[in-house]
Order: sequence, then structure tokens, then C-alpha cells
Amino acid sequence: MLATLITVGDEILIGQIVDTNSAWMAQELNKIGVQVNEIITTSDDKDSMISAFAKAESQSDIVLITGGLGPTKDDVTKLTLAEYFDDTLVKNEEVLEHVKYLFEHYVKKPMEALNENQALVPSKAKLLKNSYGTAPGMWLERNNTIFISMPGVPFEMKHLMSEHVLPEIKKIGNLPFIYHRTIITAGVGESTIATKIADWENALPIDIKLAYLPSLGTVRLRLSCIGAQEEEVKQRVDSQVERLYELIGDIVVGEGNDNSLAVQVTELFKKSGKSLSTAESCTGGKIANLLTEIPGASQIFKGSTVTYATQSKVDVLGVDASIIEKHSVVSAPVAQAMAAAAQKIFKSDYAIATTGNAGPSKGDSDAQVGTVFIGIATPTNTYAKEFFMGNHRERVVQKSVNKAFEMLQQEILKSL
Amino acid sequence: MLATLITVGDEILIGQIVDTNSAWMAQELNKIGVQVNEIITTSDDKDSMISAFAKAESQSDIVLITGGLGPTKDDVTKLTLAEYFDDTLVKNEEVLEHVKYLFEHYVKKPMEALNENQALVPSKAKLLKNSYGTAPGMWLERNNTIFISMPGVPFEMKHLMSEHVLPEIKKIGNLPFIYHRTIITAGVGESTIATKIADWENALPIDIKLAYLPSLGTVRLRLSCIGAQEEEVKQRVDSQVERLYELIGDIVVGEGNDNSLAVQVTELFKKSGKSLSTAESCTGGKIANLLTEIPGASQIFKGSTVTYATQSKVDVLGVDASIIEKHSVVSAPVAQAMAAAAQKIFKSDYAIATTGNAGPSKGDSDAQVGTVFIGIATPTNTYAKEFFMGNHRERVVQKSVNKAFEMLQQEILKSL
Repeated sequence: MLATLITVGDEILIGQIVDTNSAWMAQELNKIGVQVNEIITTSDDKDSMISAFAKAESQSDIVLITGGLGPTKDDVTKLTLAEYFDDTLVKNEEVLEHVKYLFEHYVKKPMEALNENQALVPSKAKLLKNSYGTAPGMWLERNNTIFISMPGVPFEMKHLMSEHVLPEIKKIGNLPFIYHRTIITAGVGESTIATKIADWENALPIDIKLAYLPSLGTVRLRLSCIGAQEEEVKQRVDSQVERLYELIGDIVVGEGNDNSLAVQVTELFKKSGKSLSTAESCTGGKIANLLTEIPGASQIFKGSTVTYATQSKVDVLGVDASIIEKHSVVSAPVAQAMAAAAQKIFKSDYAIATTGNAGPSKGDSDAQVGTVFIGIATPTNTYAKEFFMGNHRERVVQKSVNKAFEMLQQEILKSL
Repeated sequence: MLATLITVGDEILIGQIVDTNSAWMAQELNKIGVQVNEIITTSDDKDSMISAFAKAESQSDIVLITGGLGPTKDDVTKLTLAEYFDDTLVKNEEVLEHVKYLFEHYVKKPMEALNENQALVPSKAKLLKNSYGTAPGMWLERNNTIFISMPGVPFEMKHLMSEHVLPEIKKIGNLPFIYHRTIITAGVGESTIATKIADWENALPIDIKLAYLPSLGTVRLRLSCIGAQEEEVKQRVDSQVERLYELIGDIVVGEGNDNSLAVQVTELFKKSGKSLSTAESCTGGKIANLLTEIPGASQIFKGSTVTYATQSKVDVLGVDASIIEKHSVVSAPVAQAMAAAAQKIFKSDYAIATTGNAGPSKGDSDAQVGTVFIGIATPTNTYAKEFFMGNHRERVVQKSVNKAFEMLQQEILKSL
């Protein structure tokens, strides 16, 4: 079963916001056996929407539309859907009651007359109750294609997907099993990997797809397969992965469907029962931030300091001022002292520290922009490594974060 | 001039990564007067790409394609482009030399034969030199539509856009001026705002578009206009904004083309010459992280602690353990003590602190999931406020971050 996602909103087309809904929807659809063949972001404009609807209808079984369902004038998805389905909008009393209820209980302000428009829906639509917002989901069918319209607010969209859309699609039945397995490698470029695994890749069954995803020092290899039988699909992909490990097991640093080394590291720390803290300077708290985004982080993560100013490395962490004076703030001894200090004040088993110049201009140090030292403290050892991460601020930070997780992973693996 | 963006990659269609390239490209194109009318994400598959190319060609002057230019087998953009343009791939010696140069100087490993494929390009293409990668940009024209293909690696794409694509498009000339101005409001819903400004909105000139962008306690109002004369366009929009301020100036908390209150607050701190630190618990460092993402953050931001574990609030911040015992770790006195402690140890003029239960399960406190206390320390005062942020982890964190910036903004405004 194929789905096209349509995201409605000028805010995306002018780059004011990034569309994060589609990635979430695609993941959830994959889980129930629905493949996304295209994502279209279209303007809040009738003609553009209709052209997107038509393309989507021509190529897919399901069209999932998000956005453009607010009560204000700039939102025209509902009107456009009614026009596309040769339908009219009618007032739905149940929706009206729900909108009134939301205002009474949550907004706690009198409802503006404008919100009554939220109860106008295409007469042919089956409605999906949106418990968290005023715009209901709408389900329409035509020429064997299902159109589903949902609000663009991520929170409301996720609720409608989980409670109504995904269960209803599952009921249609006969959905295949989609399986992705992603192996994360570090330290070697994609062409080297491709050369090394060429024979294996050439012998892959035609329905097992391999993708290379290079990014800042890592290359992820994703194998994907779709089939009727879950067990068979898994077994076939897994046996290919086994052979892949025989070829490049030495450069594999983890596995997972997401981009994040943080998840890998958190899992390993949970497994080992050890705790972690961070002392960040040039990474500005990004390591801590990635860790705390993972539910259950508090099991392993003790805390973090961001000591951006040189003096706070002394005041907050208790780094010896003479070390900074002697070696400069961007140096291996300082990174090492920061890690040791974090380990001590947070009473954690492990600690990781960063100090460097992310640029664009030099800070409290003469170190070249892009120079980063990462320090690590383990129960038995403390050391720091020097890296040169290029001269693009964002990339320097991102690469440093990746490198920090890589170092943590290498160390925690030793304890398992 | 209209542009369609095409992003090639199964990794986006399965939700493995979020497309962030398009937002950046759209912003940059807008700046030179090019409007994006659609963004299409398509599969690494010839037929899907060709259908996207055809739709894009039918509706726009420029088609910007990113992704699918790697040396490995899963990348087929170049082959598909050659087919679409009825062209063949030929070896380009200059590109080959460049690829060899990159391997020699940066990768510092012998070049795999596979990379020679990077020098195969459609014979009709004008090449755009990619200094940072092996895949050159390609410029092709057909039926008055320009097709430009670039790698999907954000860093390489941005380089090609800045150095070649945008300057070349500008040369075509006769581009209009596109102007967006976004006013950020807080505390009032979109329907209330819409009702309040209805007369003004109804009287807006037809070419000035108004959009409502509601998000977690804020509503942004964006006015957009396109015209031949920069000065005239600006003046017309600005005078509308002036009238808007007369109507709802009391709920405006800032302005800006991005989503971020952090930028507003940073600007205000710079203006006032004051410094800031944070002591975060439930927000996990997100406040510090947003601040340090802004270039020049070190001018105002002293540092941060993330004291996730209760004990580290005592050990690292020096919060009095008896306060925690008496009031529980999620309480106003603790938030206040954390803010005061951060202000002290970081020697900053202002400090903001968060403590709460983001969920899904309760941590070291009995407070209901969603309860958050935000403490603030100013040069003259220290206080904390209680909030109930709902029971969805991500939203609790995001709302808390927004609220923290709102409180900081209110306080720093008093000093100006």
C-alpha cells in the first residue's frame, strides 16, 4: 500500500519552519506496512493544493494531508478538499459541541464566533475526533484512493494518527511487513566501504535494498525489505547483516533506526549500570541535550555544566586556574581537568568534557578555529584527545558531539 | 520567478532523517526574489524522480534538486537526469582531477576506483565546482526551465548555493523583492487575535498576505509581500505593521523571521550589556543549547548547569539540601534557589532555573507530571512561578523553554 504525504503551509515554503511531521508519519506508516512514495509541501493556495491532490491520487492508495485547518482566513485546506470532492461544507453539531467544550474547559475564555467555522465540514467526510484541538480529522474516498486531512500542529496530528488513522488503515488489511535495519560505521568513507563489500552487495537479492547514508565521520548502511511474512523478511535481512558484519564488523559502532549515537550510548550505559555527566564548553550543552531527550535518561545521566566563560571553568567546575594559564583554555589538560571535575561534582562513573573554538571568531583562546579537545574520565582513567573539526561553526559542534559519543561508546564497551 | 525544490532520498521517505535543506534553500531563494511554490521529496527511483521532474518543470522556472549524487549504487539522480534530458554521461577530466585532489589532500587515503564515477556527468550540463565534495553541481536547461542538481550533504549544498547557484540566478535579472515580517505574540489564541484585528485584516491590500502561526503559547503573525521596488514593498508592509501594533501591541513579545525567542532575548541582553546563566533540570540544557546556537552567544551567556539528579542540585549548584527536603525538589523555593545559585557561581547578572516533572514517569518528586517551576534571579530580585504544562514530555520541555525566555524577556526589558 502506497501513501503520499501532503504538507500544506507557506511557512515551510519560505523556510520559516522545518517540516518534522512527515518523518514521524513515515515512520509510523512503515511500521504498519504502508510505504511513503512521495512527500509534497504545497502552498496555502487552492490551485497548488488541487494539483498536489491530483498527483497524489494518481500514484497512491492513501493521501495524508496535514495543515491549513485553522479558523483563520489563511487556512483553506477544508474549502479546497470540498471543491476537489465536489462537495459542500455543512455544520456538524458534534464538532461544534466539542469546540465549545474545549473553550470552556481548557482555554477558559469565551469562544470567539470565528471558531464556529471549525464545525463546518465536507458533507461526504467521515470525521475523526480530535480530542486536543478544534479541527477534526477528515476521511474522504474517491477512485479507490483515501484522503485523510489532519491539523498541522504536531501534537494534534500525532494524536489523530495514533488513535484513528493508523488503526483504521490497519483494518483495511492485507498489509505487508516493512523491515529496515541500519548499521552505523565510523572512520571510513562510503566509497571504501562500497569497494570492500562490492561482492556481497552485487549478490544481494533484488528485493533487499541497500542505502549508504554518509554524515560527519559516520556512514550508515541501511538494508530494507518488504514482504508478506514478517518472520521470513526479518530472517532474510538479518542473515545478510550477519555476512556484512563478517566483512566490516571492525568499523561498526552501533545499530539503530535513528541518527543518534546518543541512543546507542544510553543503552550501553543502562546495560552496564554506570552513570554519566558532562562538562561542555564549545558544544554548548548539546551532548546533555541529546541525552535528556531520551526518555529514561535520568537512569544514567547525572547532569552537566556548560562553562562557556573561561572563569566559570574555575568557579563552577573547580578547574585549577593555573592549568588554564599554563596550557590555555583550549588544551588537552583543561579538557581532562574538566572531565575529572564533572565526574567528581556529579559523582558519576564516567564524564565527558569538550573545550574548543567553534568559531566564527576566536574566543578566550588563541587556538585555531575548529580545534577541539575532548576529555573523558572513566572509573580507571582520564585522558583527552585533540581534533581539528574544520571551520564551520555548526559542523564543528556537531562533529565534536559525535566524537564525544564515539569516545564514550568505546570506553563503556570495555566495561561490558 | 518560481522554484520547485526536489529532495531525493528514501531516508526521508521512511522518516530516518528530516529534510532541513529545503528550509535553508527557501530562505536564501526568498532573499534574492525567488519564490518556492512546492517542495517534493521523492524516492531514489528513476520513475518517481522523472514524475517529480515533470511536475516541477510544468509549474516553475527553476528546479533545484538535492541528493542522490554519491558514488554508490543506490544513488541514481545523475543517471535519471541524463535520461530526462535525453543525454549521456561523459567523463570530465577537470572533475576527475578535483576528486583525486580531494583524496590526496583531505581523505589522505588512496582513491577507490568507484570515485571515478563522480567524474561522469551529463554532456549538456554546465558544471558548478564543489570545492568540498566529489559531486559537482550541474546546471541544465530545457523549455525555459533551469534544472540544478546538487549533493544532499547540507554543507556541500550550502556551498554550491552560495558560491554558484544564487549568484547565477541573480544574473538572470528582473527579480522582484520579497519581504516577510513576523510579529510574535504570546498568551492569546489565534481566534481571539483574528477577531480583534478583523477589520484591519479585511482591509489589507490584496498583495499583502497575512498568516497565523500558532505554536505552544505563542502566535506569530506573518505579513508577506512581493513587488518590484524594495523601498515601496517595505514601506507598505511596515505601515500595516504599525497599525497592527496599535491593535495588539500589548501582546507582542518580539519580532523576527525565525521561531526563536532565544534570538530576541539574546539581542535584548546584548543591548543592555547584561549577562545570563541557566540552571536547568527538566529542560535538560535546552535553554543553554538554544542560546549557544546563536553566534556571539559568549558575549552574554556565562554558562549553565543541568542538574538532573536531585543530589547534584546540592553538590553542583550549592542549593541548600534542607530546602529540597522541606519543599520537594519540584517546588518554587528550589527553582528560586537554583536561579540564585547559578547567578552566584557563574557571576551573571541574570539567571533562569527550571525544575519540574516532564514525564512520562515521576522522578525524584511527587509533583504531578507536567508541573514545572521556573525561577529567575535578576540584579534586584529573585522569584519563581508555577506552571502546568500538560503531560506530554516533549511539549512540557518546549513550553517550559518558551516560558523561561518569556520571563527573561520581561525582566530584561525593565533594564532597558
